[in-house]
Amino acid sequence: MATAATQDPSLVKKDAHPFERAQLEGLMTKRFFYTQAFEIYGGVAGLYDYGPSGASLQANIISHWRNHFIIEEDMLELDTTIMTLSDVLKTSGHVDKFADWMVKDVKSGDIYRADHMIENVLEARLKGDEDARKREAGVQTSSETAPPAEDKKSKKKAKAVAVKLDDAVATEYRHILAQIDDFSGEQLADLIKKYDIRAPATGNEVSEPTEFNLMFESSIGPTGQTKGYLRPETAQGHFVNFERLLDFNNGRVPFASAQIGKSFRNEISPRAGLLRVREFTMAEIEHFVDPDNKSHPRFKEVASLALPFLPAHVQKGGETTVTKKTIGEAVSSGMVDNETLGYFLGRIFLFLEAIGINTERLRFRQHMDNEMAHYASDCWDAEIHTSYGWIECVGCADRSAFDLTMHSQRTKRDLMVQEPLKEPRVYQKYVPTINKKVLGPFFKKNAKVIEDTIMSMSQDCLQKLQKGLEAGKATVSANGETFEVTKEHVEVEYKTIKESVRNFIPNVIEPSFGIGRIFYALLEHAFWAREEDKERGVLSLPPLVAPFKVLIVPISSNEQLSPIARDISKKLRSYGIASRIDDSSATIGRRYARNDELGTPFACTIDFASVSKGTITLRERDTTSQRIGSIDEVLDVITNLCHGRLDWHGACQILPAYTGTQDVDAQ
Amino acid sequence: MATAATQDPSLVKKDAHPFERAQLEGLMTKRFFYTQAFEIYGGVAGLYDYGPSGASLQANIISHWRNHFIIEEDMLELDTTIMTLSDVLKTSGHVDKFADWMVKDVKSGDIYRADHMIENVLEARLKGDEDARKREAGVQTSSETAPPAEDKKSKKKAKAVAVKLDDAVATEYRHILAQIDDFSGEQLADLIKKYDIRAPATGNEVSEPTEFNLMFESSIGPTGQTKGYLRPETAQGHFVNFERLLDFNNGRVPFASAQIGKSFRNEISPRAGLLRVREFTMAEIEHFVDPDNKSHPRFKEVASLALPFLPAHVQKGGETTVTKKTIGEAVSSGMVDNETLGYFLGRIFLFLEAIGINTERLRFRQHMDNEMAHYASDCWDAEIHTSYGWIECVGCADRSAFDLTMHSQRTKRDLMVQEPLKEPRVYQKYVPTINKKVLGPFFKKNAKVIEDTIMSMSQDCLQKLQKGLEAGKATVSANGETFEVTKEHVEVEYKTIKESVRNFIPNVIEPSFGIGRIFYALLEHAFWAREEDKERGVLSLPPLVAPFKVLIVPISSNEQLSPIARDISKKLRSYGIASRIDDSSATIGRRYARNDELGTPFACTIDFASVSKGTITLRERDTTSQRIGSIDEVLDVITNLCHGRLDWHGACQILPAYTGTQDVDAQ
Repeated sequence: MATAATQDPSLVKKDAHPFERAQLEGLMTKRFFYTQAFEIYGGVAGLYDYGPSGASLQANIISHWRNHFIIEEDMLELDTTIMTLSDVLKTSGHVDKFADWMVKDVKSGDIYRADHMIENVLEARLKGDEDARKREAGVQTSSETAPPAEDKKSKKKAKAVAVKLDDAVATEYRHILAQIDDFSGEQLADLIKKYDIRAPATGNEVSEPTEFNLMFESSIGPTGQTKGYLRPETAQGHFVNFERLLDFNNGRVPFASAQIGKSFRNEISPRAGLLRVREFTMAEIEHFVDPDNKSHPRFKEVASLALPFLPAHVQKGGETTVTKKTIGEAVSSGMVDNETLGYFLGRIFLFLEAIGINTERLRFRQHMDNEMAHYASDCWDAEIHTSYGWIECVGCADRSAFDLTMHSQRTKRDLMVQEPLKEPRVYQKYVPTINKKVLGPFFKKNAKVIEDTIMSMSQDCLQKLQKGLEAGKATVSANGETFEVTKEHVEVEYKTIKESVRNFIPNVIEPSFGIGRIFYALLEHAFWAREEDKERGVLSLPPLVAPFKVLIVPISSNEQLSPIARDISKKLRSYGIASRIDDSSATIGRRYARNDELGTPFACTIDFASVSKGTITLRERDTTSQRIGSIDEVLDVITNLCHGRLDWHGACQILPAYTGTQDVDAQ
Repeated sequence: MATAATQDPSLVKKDAHPFERAQLEGLMTKRFFYTQAFEIYGGVAGLYDYGPSGASLQANIISHWRNHFIIEEDMLELDTTIMTLSDVLKTSGHVDKFADWMVKDVKSGDIYRADHMIENVLEARLKGDEDARKREAGVQTSSETAPPAEDKKSKKKAKAVAVKLDDAVATEYRHILAQIDDFSGEQLADLIKKYDIRAPATGNEVSEPTEFNLMFESSIGPTGQTKGYLRPETAQGHFVNFERLLDFNNGRVPFASAQIGKSFRNEISPRAGLLRVREFTMAEIEHFVDPDNKSHPRFKEVASLALPFLPAHVQKGGETTVTKKTIGEAVSSGMVDNETLGYFLGRIFLFLEAIGINTERLRFRQHMDNEMAHYASDCWDAEIHTSYGWIECVGCADRSAFDLTMHSQRTKRDLMVQEPLKEPRVYQKYVPTINKKVLGPFFKKNAKVIEDTIMSMSQDCLQKLQKGLEAGKATVSANGETFEVTKEHVEVEYKTIKESVRNFIPNVIEPSFGIGRIFYALLEHAFWAREEDKERGVLSLPPLVAPFKVLIVPISSNEQLSPIARDISKKLRSYGIASRIDDSSATIGRRYARNDELGTPFACTIDFASVSKGTITLRERDTTSQRIGSIDEVLDVITNLCHGRLDWHGACQILPAYTGTQDVDAQ
């Protein structure tokens, strides 16, 4: 999540009316893109409902995701359950480790997420310091002007009081903020004590940090004995079905499975609107690959694409400067670990660009060693810049063989790929054979552990064991005891082995998309206001994802016009293009403006020339320029615009400008 | 759910190999349509994961649903949260009433759903009776032959022991089974006592039935004070957003909202595979309509469509005979309550027909008074016949104004439509005015209840009150006491009222689809086996929903063929048609058969004539007939077949039959 340090106003569109988050949020609820869930019941933090415009925009983003990834790459789509057996999440580590630290206001009982509270308080102190310094210099400070809209609502937000800090203290604070995600519970407790951090709402002391597991817990069936959690990611649903997926793919890797669905995270104190929520849509790909060969057959298709990279070593030096580099170079120089990872970074870039993300505000940030899961070999986040700073929207990690190995150990299932070898592999090795009939009765209750120890010995140990046995007896250490064994109990042979199959657990490369975060970032990038109408917003969404593609407006309520409107709507529907008729009594200008707010890229206006001459006009949202043509000509142009076969410049070559005089004679 | 009485073998396809459920189920897991969730962890009853073929089939069904309903009818799509605030479900009645009765084996602790256990035991006794009678008549009985596959698995299934029953007892049992869904907890307890019904697995006695709420419960946030449930239906998400939806539709009804998403039901003992599960996909429409005008503008489009109806009065007479009637007749005769309900029944029929449901095995059954929710004015279920009997797959209910009224009362929000009246409504009525300054101090703590009582009086009471006041004093009964009031406290005037707006709470017509049940019923209808290959199944799914539309098979691994296969795949993808290449080393016949199991309707075979002459063959799944043409001709035919613009008969007019000789010279 963003800290003050990551906010860079230079990245915000300069040529338009300055971005105001409150204005965008107002538009979102007014035109029902989304709203807090259970609003009429007072609402619940971190839960959001998507209305018609938002649901449609989201469905279009998902539909393009399905085409761009699943269809284009023949991925195996899954739909696995949200309710997840606790054992599965115990194996994956979520039951033990998927937690945040929380503290309690010792008097009011209010609960805070510990790192967020510290961040909040220290940022407020730094702000106060800044204000105090400005005041010294005679500048009006922001704490003297009206607070921004979001601060008014939040009771829990710490207030900036203009108090100057020592230079050394301010530096310490900044240092802590830069690594606020990485502290342990103990370290957080130390910070709270050292800097006397108190509950922002009351100024009371807070309790020691305690761990809070972020999974929603429930109970499956009536006995109360089968515990379940709502999944925190879709990934485990892929891993537990690995055997069937591999079989579906005729036993071969590489292949990828993909799933789009809801996941849950019981946040301690949700904030930042759609960016940190308790229920969210994810789209996840698990690409299973030979650990010894992470090349990708389509790598060359993206190799010359240049991406904005922020590698780990740059961040370690305290820098955030992005380097543009082709994916080919990034992989060949070893900066990106392998071709498959590089390929997906390129595909992610192309996807985000297609749906309308401003790629000037997109970067690929490599995880530093301390933030990467211990099993991951490399990880890059696609981060998108918003008014909240740089936001992780897509993670792309090499999860190695971790998950499949853990599930395999826990369930005793062989989650392996069997690769037939062209040339059988011939080699020699020491192979022990236990004589159970003798060993068992001789060692009684210790027999099992001795057998297990021998069977799992390294080649070196087996060689030593063989030597000992040849000499008469050898020792085996197990369970902290030492046992003497002879050839009666066990024999070790140096055998020639011929293998025609290679068994391996595949590695997994996982691109994981937070659809809600991408959705919100896209809306920020698409939003602006016209100089001449600053109160109303415009959403410049590409036709590919715009909730409705075409607005159909009869110029008046005259009954000759409405059959034409219905006919145009029907024709567009048959071409698969979503349109809306606005036959309300509002002025044409108002109806255009309302649809600019919905991001509708095109409008067809029906006037009396439509009746007399069969022409309609076509208006483009961003330029507001209008063209004219016969109904069929205009619909043909719209279809090509919506399918990306034509841009507006091209459309203007086909349809003449509408001058407003063509239909005068018909009125 | 089906009872033995509703199973009618005459409805099963007669011309094919007899349907065996075990064979279909084997195919489902083998080709990964779906499988029990967490299989490698031993599985959890009532939870299923969909694999690539199932997820794709499901996505295609949903995609057609979206086109057929949301796009075609300009519905407002929603995506509301699964995690639901408990207050909302308290208001809707689910917290108090969404429960089943369960009993416990007093010794083993096993839990049974009470009605299912009774059903199960009585059915077994009737089966035993039947066997005993057959034995008397000298016929071999099924309990002497191998039991069907599903019985082997289920430990809890009661065994049929060949014991003859009195005729009167057998009749009683059948009577109970016919109404097994309708008993109260007390009645279930009586049945258990009266018929000595014991736990099927052990023969032990069972406890008194207790209620078990079927919602999964969880806790939102870290305090444990905000209770939440996983939604049991998507409908409440529409109702709590009604104000915003109405506003989005410019304040006018009728309009419909629609939502596709997961819902949950914590079944006591799930059974019947996909038909009774704990997590399922629903697609729900809430059509908001003026209670005084339930006509539908597009009604005439379905009026002449004849549907198979099973109205309530026929069922009351103990009959299950279906009557074919046009929707126009059904509505005009009053059998179906209104045009909007009738319109949706027609649209539901057309949807199910389009995705491949055999409409000979579909009926619309009206709810009887005792099964309908008390607020509903009419309700019809689309039931589909399967090997489990007739299954409710779509409910279509008129929920009247119930939900909006309840939410409005609970939240004090005005969930009303304001309709401007063309002619203002002018009328006279009695209007009381309270003089609070006098009434308050005079009646002290009783003042509030007296005021409330007066303000909610009927016109008759107000007239009486006025008369009393005119005469000096009147009495008001409130809280079991009687109070004397005078003109000092309250006045009543007979006023002329002029209303220019009509306020009303809309009624809701709700078509609600269980996607998983439709999915399963469709698979049963599509499944058969060829006479010459009874071991392998064929899924005759229409191209509209088939997981993959085209199989591409190179006849050998010759390297000249694979670029052609990739090229065909790429072309089909650009036309939006999902295909799969099978370049495995299996024989052509085996590869065709594998794709018959996946329901792939068409196959393109690439042979050496493809290299020399540019021809490929086209195979159709159901007839196995093969045609030949140039690559472009064949792909053009496939595109038209997949988009429903051509049927196989038409395709045969365009492409000549493949005789197997055309490419001999090229080999």
